[in-house]
Parts: sequence; structure tokens; C-alpha cells
Amino acid sequence: MSKLKPIEYADASAEVRAVFDDIKTSRNLQDVNNFWKYLAHDPKTLRRTWESVKEVMEPGAIDGVTKEMIYLAVSVSNGCGYCIASHTAAARKAGMTDAMFGEVMAVVGMANETNRLVNGYRVPIDPSLDR
Amino acid sequence: MSKLKPIEYADASAEVRAVFDDIKTSRNLQDVNNFWKYLAHDPKTLRRTWESVKEVMEPGAIDGVTKEMIYLAVSVSNGCGYCIASHTAAARKAGMTDAMFGEVMAVVGMANETNRLVNGYRVPIDPSLDR
Amino acid sequence: MSKLKPIEYADASAEVRAVFDDIKTSRNLQDVNNFWKYLAHDPKTLRRTWESVKEVMEPGAIDGVTKEMIYLAVSVSNGCGYCIASHTAAARKAGMTDAMFGEVMAVVGMANETNRLVNGYRVPIDPSLDR
Amino acid sequence: MSKLKPIEYADASAEVRAVFDDIKTSRNLQDVNNFWKYLAHDPKTLRRTWESVKEVMEPGAIDGVTKEMIYLAVSVSNGCGYCIASHTAAARKAGMTDAMFGEVMAVVGMANETNRLVNGYRVPIDPSLDR
Amino acid sequence: MSKLKPIEYADASAEVRAVFDDIKTSRNLQDVNNFWKYLAHDPKTLRRTWESVKEVMEPGAIDGVTKEMIYLAVSVSNGCGYCIASHTAAARKAGMTDAMFGEVMAVVGMANETNRLVNGYRVPIDPSLDR
Amino acid sequence: MSKLKPIEYADASAEVRAVFDDIKTSRNLQDVNNFWKYLAHDPKTLRRTWESVKEVMEPGAIDGVTKEMIYLAVSVSNGCGYCIASHTAAARKAGMTDAMFGEVMAVVGMANETNRLVNGYRVPIDPSLDR
Repeated sequence: MSKLKPIEYADASAEVRAVFDDIKTSRNLQDVNNFWKYLAHDPKTLRRTWESVKEVMEPGAIDGVTKEMIYLAVSVSNGCGYCIASHTAAARKAGMTDAMFGEVMAVVGMANETNRLVNGYRVPIDPSLDR
Repeated sequence: MSKLKPIEYADASAEVRAVFDDIKTSRNLQDVNNFWKYLAHDPKTLRRTWESVKEVMEPGAIDGVTKEMIYLAVSVSNGCGYCIASHTAAARKAGMTDAMFGEVMAVVGMANETNRLVNGYRVPIDPSLDR
Repeated sequence: MSKLKPIEYADASAEVRAVFDDIKTSRNLQDVNNFWKYLAHDPKTLRRTWESVKEVMEPGAIDGVTKEMIYLAVSVSNGCGYCIASHTAAARKAGMTDAMFGEVMAVVGMANETNRLVNGYRVPIDPSLDR
Repeated sequence: MSKLKPIEYADASAEVRAVFDDIKTSRNLQDVNNFWKYLAHDPKTLRRTWESVKEVMEPGAIDGVTKEMIYLAVSVSNGCGYCIASHTAAARKAGMTDAMFGEVMAVVGMANETNRLVNGYRVPIDPSLDR
Repeated sequence: MSKLKPIEYADASAEVRAVFDDIKTSRNLQDVNNFWKYLAHDPKTLRRTWESVKEVMEPGAIDGVTKEMIYLAVSVSNGCGYCIASHTAAARKAGMTDAMFGEVMAVVGMANETNRLVNGYRVPIDPSLDR
Repeated sequence: MSKLKPIEYADASAEVRAVFDDIKTSRNLQDVNNFWKYLAHDPKTLRRTWESVKEVMEPGAIDGVTKEMIYLAVSVSNGCGYCIASHTAAARKAGMTDAMFGEVMAVVGMANETNRLVNGYRVPIDPSLDR
């Protein structure tokens, strides 16, 4: 048996509960998502990942919905089904409309297309772009 | 000899010049980038790609700088050197500051990290995220 | 109808059975995994892949569990669900503990993150690293 | 110092020379490409890779130029600069014209675009496609 | 609720129906695939994607089945499950036999293997390949 | 001008110097690598990335050289040139021999090949592997 099961709050260690509590408070949630319940198998990675995500995703020079749309765009490009589901939900919660979702997808699609055209045509960087 | 050379305006067909002219006018440029000069070897792909990029990248429900940052994020994730150079330049021209660039990179980094943690832990989608 | 079905031992050609027998003997298994039952549709690829995997995965300068963890790390990075399941099982069988699994995931996550930070910041190789 | 140097024929072991000789004979070449000169650091991988490539790339149900174009398409999609250079050359030698190259690139571009649109829109497989 | 549902013909706008009609006529189908029913949420992307796919995939210097096999090869390399299902079906409809499918897979496998060997050994491009 | 330059110690803020000092002390170096000099443009990401890398890469259930080989394997798979150079050097410093390097590459190559064979043949997970 090698497939892990989620660790629920009731079964979690004090160290894990402390992270779960911070996630629930910071995001105003009743319960944490499966992602955190699985990472709980490695409390150090759970804590480090949560602290990193919290720091990176808080609004700064870029607002929250834009950060979520960038996260979603990368997840779509990488084909991570869970991440697409969770960051679509997060982006919508932060204000992404249907029209904005459609435009994110369109940009992701074009970027993936032109990235490969550039590779295949072996386009050298214009001197004006390389400084 | 199998490596293509860029096609300059002076050597381009009328069909290619028409696209180059539209790029220069739309973006207020003196000359087009190498990307277009290489695609010019296939006028149909040149035209189709330019028309698609023009349609996708024009501000709509999402503004221009956000679209460029998403394009950049995908290109960084895919490791396309030319695309990173050209879309960093385009995003800066559209208003991306140093602080915004740093935050885009931080989000791209975290998304790539957590996408793999999700894969490795085989996290199932929460029912609340799958509807 | 274009989706292939697994080829079971009872229905396999002599050529395919010879490979299945070698897999079962080498790995001390009752039956081969689905991967081999699908590759059996192309006996040349079945044989070549099995012989390559057998040669590559046998302990050498690197021991068996480390090889399986590297295989798993790449599969996680590529997001291949089947491969993650089968190589997690193989790595555990070879001795990977829960703590080791957690550390493999942590390294895979960090590598994916920093690979993209390097791309985005366009970091040139230090002369000391390039020789 | 950790960067390997190519192993030239004059400095190669008998085992490596045997592979180099077979490559030169099979492909009617004066010298082998850098790829093989680097793999020569691991004679087992050199031999296994050459034998696999030779078996896979020989014309069968699919002709040689089509196989090279598929190899090129994958290499472009993965962004492997060396592989793009060497398989563009190989495909041209096998008969790929400028027009065919352009169409390969166009297909690779569209596939990469639509692969991501499918991911982002979370499109379920049509029952008619799943059997 | 953030997961989109397919848009059926009966519920589609005139703009979407026009694209659906063109897909059905061009491909001689009773109904369009889920891919188009999901893209219908963004009529501009639906139209642009269909027109691009139609232009790119029509036989030209490369015939239809070869184009479908290249599309499939890229989709397999990228791990897009839906795209693998739909382009396997399309390639078979265009004439791909079981033997041809096996050879496409074998080439895709080898390309992905050697692309990484090249990366890891840091193989420089041979001057003869770089012109 | 949009390409960043490395930030040298002499020009760094106190916040950046503190991280540089910790890197140099922890790894017994005269100077930090370019990676850190570029990340220094975003002190928060510099600090977070360093602390994460330090925590993840310290020997635990898995020893240091194995962790570096996994990091290298992922970087090779992703095609990050800088990362391949720096983690090859780090792995060698930690004890990776030429023979071990060759075996890491062989495993990375096979994993990338079989990951795609699995995708293309649409191999379902064996029930015995899914628990």
C-alpha cells in the first residue's frame, strides 16, 4: 500500500493543526483543501509551502486576482488537474469573471503556440531585446 | 544547410509586407522583431499568428499589462528564452515595474512547485472544487 | 474504436509471452503490470523497452532505491499519473520510507520552482560552473 | 571541473569505436555527431541508445521522413535546441521541403495551443472517443 | 461553482451555431466534440481556434494522416488525455493503422529520451548542423 | 532596457548581504553564484528561496548526494541549462562520480520515454498500484 490518505484535523499532530488553523483563519475557511491534508504527511513541507504561498500570494505590486490568474495560467500550461480546479475557484473568488477566464485561456493558448514556433524556427534574440 | 535566415522587409513578398506593415502600424514600431521575420518563411502561418496575437492581446476584460504578464509567466514556465526576452520587454513597455516582475516570477515559481507536490501526493480534487 | 485493450498472457503471442516471462522471473511477480500488457500491441517496442528498463534499473554505481526515486521524481515532474503510481510502489518495495518519499517530493518541488526562477531572471552560467 | 568533453574516435575504446563504426556505416557518414561523442562517456547508454534509435527510425509502417518530422515535432515542443538542429537536418536529408517544415511547425503550434485550452476548460472525453 | 458545462447546439447563440455548423459540414459530423462545446463559452476563441485548426490541418505539402500523427505525437508528449483520445481517433479515421500507431509511439518515446540525454550531457551543436 | 544585471555584494543592501553571508557560510564559498545575485533584485524571494533550499537540501532521510542527483534529474528533464550546470557541479562536489552521473542520465532518459508510452497507450492504473 503506497497511496497516502488525507490527514484530517481530528487526526493531525499539534504541528499540523497549527498550520491548518492559520490557513483557515487567513482564508476564512471552515476546513482546508485536500492539498494541505496530503502535505500534512510531511509537516516541514506543509509549513514551508503554506508560509511561501501565503507570502507570495498576498496582494503587493500586483493585486490578488491577477496573481491567481497567473497561478492558474501556469497550472493550465503544466496540465495539473487539481491545481486548475483549485486556482480557477480561487481566481473566481478573487473576482475573475467568465470573460476574464476566457481571456486568460486565450493568452495561455497563444503563448504555448508561439513558444514552440520560436523553438522550431530557432529565432535568435533581437539585440534590442537582450539588454 | 537547414537553418533559416530572417526575411527582411526589402526582400519580402507583398503578402509578407502587408503583415509587417500592420504589425508596425499597430505597435508603432520602426521594424518588426525577428520572430515575424522568421515566420515570414510561411506567409500563412505569419498572417494567422499575427491576427491571432493581435486579437488575443488587445485589452478586453483583462488589461494589456496583465495579459503580457500572463504571456511572460507561461513563457518562463516553458523555458522559451526568446519569448521571455520579448515578453519581458513588452510587459515593461505596458507598465510592468521591477516590483511587479519580481512578483510574477515568485508566483510562477510557487505554481511550478505546488503543481508537482500535487502530482506526487496524488491529491484528489475536493468535491467543492469540482463543480 | 481506437482505444487499445490490455493483452493478457493467455492471449499473447509466443514473442510477447517470452518478454512477460522474463519480467515475471526478473521481478518475481505473478503477473505483469498493465504497462507491459498495453505495450504488447507492439512486440518490438515491448521487448526493446523491457530490455532497456532492465539494463538501466539494475543496481550499479547507484543502488536500486535511489534509481527508483529518480524515476519517480521525473514522473512527478512530468505529471504522468500511471508512472507516479507504479514507481512509488516500486520505490517503496525497494526501501523508500514515508520520510524518504516526503524528501523526494520536497526536492522535486524546489527544483521545479528554481528552474523557473532561473529562466525568468535569465541567469547566465557562472564561468566556474561552465567547465 | 564537471563539464564533459566529446570523445573523438581516436581516443575511444574498442567498445565505443564499434558503435561509432556502425553509426557511420548505417548512415553513410564520415564522423558521428556530438551527441554520440558525449554519450561515449557511458558506453552502455551509447550502445543501447544507438540500437534503439536505429530500430525505431528505420522505415516500417511509417516512412523515414515522416518519422524524422515526428521526432522534430516532439523536440520543438520540448525546446531541445540541439535536437531541433539535428532532426531538422535529418528530416531535410530525408526529404522534408521548406513547405513541409512550415506545416510541421504550424501543427506543433496548434497542438500546443489546443492542449492547453483543453486543460483549462477541463473538457471531459466524449464517450465516442473513449472506446 | 466554477466548472463550466458544455454548450449544446440548442442552447447556443447564432455566432456559436455558425461555427458548429461549419465544423459539422467540414468534417461530416452529426454533432461537434466536447472541445468545441466548451470553447463556445468564449465565441471569439471558438471561432479563431476552429479557423486556425481548419487551415492548419487541411492537407497541403503534408497529407492529412501525417498531420494527425504529428498532432497526436505532441499531445502524447504533453500528456493531454483528451487530446490523445481525440487525435488518436482522428488519425485512425484518416488512415493510421495499428502498426503506424505503434511506430508513432516508439518515435515519441525515443525523442523524449534523447532530448533529455542531450540536456544532461550538455551537448553543443555541431557546426555542420548550425547553418 | 529590461534585462537585469547581477547584484554584487558590494552593491547589495543589508538585507541581501545577510542572505549572501548565510549562503557563503553554510556552503563554505568565497562568493555566491549568479542565481542568488539575480534573485537579489527581489529580497523577499531571495530570502524565501534560500531558506527553502537550505531546509530541503540538508541531509535527512535521504543523503546529500542523492538529493543533488534528484535535483539534477528534474533540471535535466525540464531543460534548464543553468540548473543543469550548477546541480551537476553540486552533485559532483557531494560525491557523484562519472559512473553515477551516467546512471542518473540513463534513468532520466528512460523515465521520459516510458512516461510518454504510458500517455500514448492510455494505460489505466492497475488496481494493485492504486491503493
